[in-house]
Amino acid sequence: VRCTPIAGVILTGGEVDSIAGLLSLRERQAFMLLAHACVHAALDANPIFEVVSRELVPRIRMVLDVPVALTLPDGAPAGLSVTAFGVPGKLPLYAEAGSSDPSALVPDGETVGLCITDGIRRLLFVPGCAAITAALRERVQGADCLMFDGTLWRDDEMLRAGLGERTGRRMGHVSVSGSSGVIESFRDTAIGTRILVHLNNSNPLLLADSDERRIAEAEGWIVAHDGMMVRL
Amino acid sequence: VRCTPIAGVILTGGEVDSIAGLLSLRERQAFMLLAHACVHAALDANPIFEVVSRELVPRIRMVLDVPVALTLPDGAPAGLSVTAFGVPGKLPLYAEAGSSDPSALVPDGETVGLCITDGIRRLLFVPGCAAITAALRERVQGADCLMFDGTLWRDDEMLRAGLGERTGRRMGHVSVSGSSGVIESFRDTAIGTRILVHLNNSNPLLLADSDERRIAEAEGWIVAHDGMMVRL
Repeated sequence: VRCTPIAGVILTGGEVDSIAGLLSLRERQAFMLLAHACVHAALDANPIFEVVSRELVPRIRMVLDVPVALTLPDGAPAGLSVTAFGVPGKLPLYAEAGSSDPSALVPDGETVGLCITDGIRRLLFVPGCAAITAALRERVQGADCLMFDGTLWRDDEMLRAGLGERTGRRMGHVSVSGSSGVIESFRDTAIGTRILVHLNNSNPLLLADSDERRIAEAEGWIVAHDGMMVRL
Repeated sequence: VRCTPIAGVILTGGEVDSIAGLLSLRERQAFMLLAHACVHAALDANPIFEVVSRELVPRIRMVLDVPVALTLPDGAPAGLSVTAFGVPGKLPLYAEAGSSDPSALVPDGETVGLCITDGIRRLLFVPGCAAITAALRERVQGADCLMFDGTLWRDDEMLRAGLGERTGRRMGHVSVSGSSGVIESFRDTAIGTRILVHLNNSNPLLLADSDERRIAEAEGWIVAHDGMMVRL
């Protein structure tokens, strides 16, 4: 009666914007909850998430670089597999108090990207990433679709807007523009469809008539929007 | 830039529907956070709430039956005081695992009602209450407005609707109807305006043309709605 069409949830990090939505899925609906052990540990450390019944919502550990076959709610195979891979990232903001160096990048697992495939086509989903490494570019090479971290256009965007004291780098997000940014870093990588996701509300890319939007689109990037559908 | 008009938050319990909204107030906005020590302990036990800066959002302890003077964001007195009082209640669902008898009523403080007054008029806000005692009726007597727990019309409403296995009693909510329900219990109590709040989506009172709505209105109760304004 209270079900949603959601058959599973895959968490790519432990930050509030990734995990708090789980609290809205507490009406005793069965689904799969997939995450790396680092993120499960963040859930385990917060008893409020016990409101999502472990009995109905098994907490399944993903191991980096090991594919998991996705199933439909009735247990039938979905014909898709998902593989988590580590990307440079940060501790969740709320967990910084226990860290001696909260600005340091943390081991693989705290932040992951996902590769979703039916064995033929391949979509990569990387909503948070602190740096684009050669290994990441290599993994992305030849993907039919890349959905990538578009949090900020420039690193000091929030400071300039008076929205806080934190740079993108400090928050664990590479910027879209700039010499080590998303556009530059993937310019020579073969990718089918390039989509920016996870945009912060300070990002001028959100404005359809901004210079930044024109630049990104000229470079072959699409800005994600609610209700977007992608066919590969 | 990202402020809301919210100058303060007063928590009446530690259940998810009371506290999870705090996570949406994490954009470094200053406000007062008032709650009983029991509810502060629930927040303290969940590191995710550290995302709401303790520096900008002081966590202020309310002591039962001791008025707190409310202030405006600039520190000026608001001309109102709020007093928390204990009402029969339950442990939050997510905290039941640590309890030997999760169906037991728990000590005053886990669930509180609020009395808000300018020294002349008096509004009582009791969104969760497991039983209406003589002491509670006495406290309500003569209030200019009572906003009271209207979660369920009848105790077995969720079972009958196939929404779960829990009665209202098991969830810590007295029902609106019935011999020990809200309507009966307050029938002979002098109250200015009687408003039902915190309705579950199974409650037929939500339907403007239901028999239950007609019964409640004939008894002098109003069903709260979004954007409702009350003048005393």
